[in-house]
Amino acid sequence: MTLDDYLARCRSAVDAELERRVPAVSETPATIHQAMRYSLFAGGKRIRPILCMAAAEAVAGLSGGAEPPGCALELVHTYSLIHDDLPSLDNDDYRRGRLTCHKVYGEAMAILAGDALLTLAVQTLAEMEAVSAEARLRMIQELSRAAGTVGGMIGGQVADLEAEGKPVEAQQLDYIHRSKTSALIRAAVRIGAIFAGASATQYEALGVYGEHTGMAFQIVDDVLDVVGTSDELGKTAGKDAAQNKATFPALYGVEASRERAAEHLAKALGALESFDESALRLRQIAERIVNRTA
Amino acid sequence: MTLDDYLARCRSAVDAELERRVPAVSETPATIHQAMRYSLFAGGKRIRPILCMAAAEAVAGLSGGAEPPGCALELVHTYSLIHDDLPSLDNDDYRRGRLTCHKVYGEAMAILAGDALLTLAVQTLAEMEAVSAEARLRMIQELSRAAGTVGGMIGGQVADLEAEGKPVEAQQLDYIHRSKTSALIRAAVRIGAIFAGASATQYEALGVYGEHTGMAFQIVDDVLDVVGTSDELGKTAGKDAAQNKATFPALYGVEASRERAAEHLAKALGALESFDESALRLRQIAERIVNRTA
Repeated sequence: MTLDDYLARCRSAVDAELERRVPAVSETPATIHQAMRYSLFAGGKRIRPILCMAAAEAVAGLSGGAEPPGCALELVHTYSLIHDDLPSLDNDDYRRGRLTCHKVYGEAMAILAGDALLTLAVQTLAEMEAVSAEARLRMIQELSRAAGTVGGMIGGQVADLEAEGKPVEAQQLDYIHRSKTSALIRAAVRIGAIFAGASATQYEALGVYGEHTGMAFQIVDDVLDVVGTSDELGKTAGKDAAQNKATFPALYGVEASRERAAEHLAKALGALESFDESALRLRQIAERIVNRTA
Repeated sequence: MTLDDYLARCRSAVDAELERRVPAVSETPATIHQAMRYSLFAGGKRIRPILCMAAAEAVAGLSGGAEPPGCALELVHTYSLIHDDLPSLDNDDYRRGRLTCHKVYGEAMAILAGDALLTLAVQTLAEMEAVSAEARLRMIQELSRAAGTVGGMIGGQVADLEAEGKPVEAQQLDYIHRSKTSALIRAAVRIGAIFAGASATQYEALGVYGEHTGMAFQIVDDVLDVVGTSDELGKTAGKDAAQNKATFPALYGVEASRERAAEHLAKALGALESFDESALRLRQIAERIVNRTA
């Protein structure tokens, strides 16, 4: 199976699982479920669920079944996008080529839809009955730390907002990327590892892979915002520069940023050395993340 | 010990635990921790943690120790207040006699502070190492369902927003109260019960107590908004009527609302019949909730 086929298969499996786990529009109150579904089913690449599933595969082979924790990660990711896009935060009208949640459903509903997605993510992990209570708890711990304020996603988002329009320093930028993006991607990989019953050594190695893959992902994202077009990206290009965002290209330029991404890729791949062919997809995904053009 | 002394002692125990569990302002990024603490330590009555602790006491006697799950409940409650107060939702400038979070820290920080409190609530329950993994998971399930969209707090908030300015029907009003307020209060009582190792029968009875206490709480809240002054309440009085909110007094009048609250009180107390003196505080708290003037 080609990587593209693999990714497509994972995406449909995740989408089917999301379809089952997110309340139907027929559930009261309808509007909130519409708003949640609008943003969830908007053509996302499902990178975090796929990394979670590929990490489970690296540990346990092709057993599959890591869709439920993958869903939880996508729910958290989508909540963070909805809140980030709000007028008082990044004020984005478009996301993945469509109007953002608050443009369609209004600010109040977008705020509540984000809250609801985060809440549902936790419920999804807590109710995963095929997994031991201990493993479920460890996954919830991973997710809540990675999404929190101390070295987690919200902390990174705050630092990002506060850095806007100010001269950015290397250390600050590293903190922003590490917490805003890399923490949740690392958690995705670790959660897949826990789900599949990884040993401490495997968990550790996969965490290093996740961290560097996450850093590479964010650097490439920033580069694409500079060199890509809105059409390719499905969102407003050049937005970072317009908002004076702290980014890698702004600090080091595009070429040095690409080199830095390549360094993270090398470290991510290095962390997988003790894994055999079972980690093929993890290796391919990291490479794809760095070489993508959208 | 008088009830007032008991409540004061519970409040300090909860506050001390919150102080330990919420990241210090010295943690990066400082602003988000300031915003979280601003709203958390704003003189809240800590009703949900106290109900959680008193429920644990009803099951296991004066063993205490239910402060950590109590904290999780207060974190969720505070997140919901911060988001509810936002301009696009209830647009409240004052809460407990002080400026609301977004008036002090801005909308972006208030949205993120709410997100962070919800995330921290989950982390708090997941990391409660003195409790078995099974019990921790059950508490997380209770909390996430009670805070969610289907019969939970967010569902109630959405229905509340959508009912504004429209003629309200009894069934709709019941749904709003049940999900917006009663679900989390019932979860508080149930979580205390699970924490203390309640039997299925005890869990069931305490859930009924929690549900009716929660309904009574919301009805009295609505009544006080009509008959109280802003000074007594520490928030803008008459706000419900001004916003055309769906409330009990709006539908039935103040006297019938008081009667309805008394009925819920009777049912709450009835649910505790199989409990001995250990449920004294639960009984007193339900009575106090109905007879309070602020």
